Amino acid sequence: MKRVYNFAAGPAALPLSVLEKAKEELTDFGGCGMSVMEISHRSAPFQAVADDAEARLRRLLAIPDNYKVLFLQGGASMQFDMLPMNLMHDTKRAYYLNTGNFAKKSAKEAKLFGEVLIPASSEEIGYTALPALTAEMFSEPADYVHITYNNTIFGTTFHKLPEVGDKVLAADMTSCILSEPVNVSDYGVIYAGAQKNLGPAGLTVVIIREDLIGLNENLPAMLDYAVYAKNNSMYNTPPTFAIYMMDLVLEWLEDLGGVPAIYEINKRKAAALYAYLDSSKLFRGIVTKKEDRSIMSVTFTTGDKALDTRFCKEAEAAGLCNLKGHRVAGGMRASIYNAVSEEAVQALIAFMADFEKNNI
Amino acid sequence: MKRVYNFAAGPAALPLSVLEKAKEELTDFGGCGMSVMEISHRSAPFQAVADDAEARLRRLLAIPDNYKVLFLQGGASMQFDMLPMNLMHDTKRAYYLNTGNFAKKSAKEAKLFGEVLIPASSEEIGYTALPALTAEMFSEPADYVHITYNNTIFGTTFHKLPEVGDKVLAADMTSCILSEPVNVSDYGVIYAGAQKNLGPAGLTVVIIREDLIGLNENLPAMLDYAVYAKNNSMYNTPPTFAIYMMDLVLEWLEDLGGVPAIYEINKRKAAALYAYLDSSKLFRGIVTKKEDRSIMSVTFTTGDKALDTRFCKEAEAAGLCNLKGHRVAGGMRASIYNAVSEEAVQALIAFMADFEKNNI
Repeated sequence: MKRVYNFAAGPAALPLSVLEKAKEELTDFGGCGMSVMEISHRSAPFQAVADDAEARLRRLLAIPDNYKVLFLQGGASMQFDMLPMNLMHDTKRAYYLNTGNFAKKSAKEAKLFGEVLIPASSEEIGYTALPALTAEMFSEPADYVHITYNNTIFGTTFHKLPEVGDKVLAADMTSCILSEPVNVSDYGVIYAGAQKNLGPAGLTVVIIREDLIGLNENLPAMLDYAVYAKNNSMYNTPPTFAIYMMDLVLEWLEDLGGVPAIYEINKRKAAALYAYLDSSKLFRGIVTKKEDRSIMSVTFTTGDKALDTRFCKEAEAAGLCNLKGHRVAGGMRASIYNAVSEEAVQALIAFMADFEKNNI
Repeated sequence: MKRVYNFAAGPAALPLSVLEKAKEELTDFGGCGMSVMEISHRSAPFQAVADDAEARLRRLLAIPDNYKVLFLQGGASMQFDMLPMNLMHDTKRAYYLNTGNFAKKSAKEAKLFGEVLIPASSEEIGYTALPALTAEMFSEPADYVHITYNNTIFGTTFHKLPEVGDKVLAADMTSCILSEPVNVSDYGVIYAGAQKNLGPAGLTVVIIREDLIGLNENLPAMLDYAVYAKNNSMYNTPPTFAIYMMDLVLEWLEDLGGVPAIYEINKRKAAALYAYLDSSKLFRGIVTKKEDRSIMSVTFTTGDKALDTRFCKEAEAAGLCNLKGHRVAGGMRASIYNAVSEEAVQALIAFMADFEKNNI
């Protein structure tokens, strides 16, 4: 078996040891004579998996006791609807920062449920930096302020949170959760699709302060945070295999030293790649403000479409896979999530340097 | 490795050959050097998987060209909301037959979106048979008639469809899809959570006539059949691994001879088990009308709670697993879905006969 270096934006690389563990017990989970896919979500062995996953996530993020951890389906896109349905309850108004494609989509969906205020946008500069923010931007009464913490398509991230005063902050952390320390108490709601840093596609994690649950009544059961909270995310059958995989990924991360340890590794990976980009005469980073650069999603280009295409093709042939940028951003993107090793990033830099030598 | 006989109601048994194939390529899918879980849903290799799964499902059910096949998340429970949101458009009224726990839940959710007419119910007899139906019951104008085709908790099934005239019939087929031939043209919508006959939990299949798509505007994107139809179920990241597993299950079923072949096997399995129940002096079937008996979900009891509990415990110890009935029905339930072999059913009958000998 050959494994490649996988820079996919999501579904993305998983730790090899996690895949090997899953493989080993795929037809016989814990000696029960069945696959983990074949047992009831309400069985003791599976309940232990779900409990373990939640406990690990709570430890890794130091989630306070007054927050619930919910497991849902539908990805971040479903949260673009559920968040306003559940949280727009008083002013029926919310702030949305327009910092990327998914940020824009989340605002569009929220408009179906109430008033959306866009205090700042970087759409006009192609989302290549974050807009400048001031505390005054959030002066209207509103039920919450929504941010997309890491803008995976364009490669920007919030290294400093907006000053929202006592307003509830809600963050889409799909492409950065567990990559760096966060203070959960700064947020009312954190949500993340699993398929980047948590596990396979098909699972969404919501971390929500308890007082924000149950604000609106008569919601459809499957769209009501209160139903998930009350039923420990087992109102109906959850995506059991995805939860099992997340548990293994979280175990891997704890064994590695948790968020502080992976954060050091992630910083080294990003620093090395950006240092090369800044010194390169062929490649340049797409994000224009260095202080907005993501440590998870590194976007770059040669400025020449045909050359970008050739780069991706040659990289693929050399076992450096899935470097093509998102269609709306163009260029290249190296998603260097938690499971992408320093070795993979060093291999990418070496390949880019070689490519540069041959094409300049 | 020992494998047990697994009668779980869902997540349920999967064919061993399917699990072994998935295991074999779990870290390296088709020689690409990545797991199928690690590749983009928009990549050519994954698109081929999704296309293959749809093509197989179309062949197996002879789905007409004017029907779309959609892959969603959230299980049947999410369809309890999506169906009325999308289909209640003209009269804003629908018929729901109250034939079981999930049927009742689906009607309850539908009431959030319009008027729900319940023409018949078997709730008062504990759902132990289907209510008698007449064509006159569906005489009011309504956007559709909803049935739960197989009532998995109580073990009843529609062996004859209600006469709904030219009304749209919508069916929850979660626990019976692909177990017997169906004429898709009889239905406007068929939906099914995957975790019984299709694959692992976390995937829902919707088969819908094209003219029923897009009837209501301004729906949340993730709750709009039109969005899934337009984007070939890839508006956002679908549950890729679950789709891959379904593709393998469908391949297994086609290799076996498709729905006609499995139907013969399923009939033999159910006939053998019911024949034993009808001849037993200890056990009896819970469904009171033989003509309503499900061939997928066989419910039975000794009539003695303590004895039922001991039976389940001793069966479990003998490698006959997950026979405990649903908490609202009590007794025992053998879910004998497609992936449960005739050998498993024969082993169950032999064990029951032994238990009977020792306890009568």
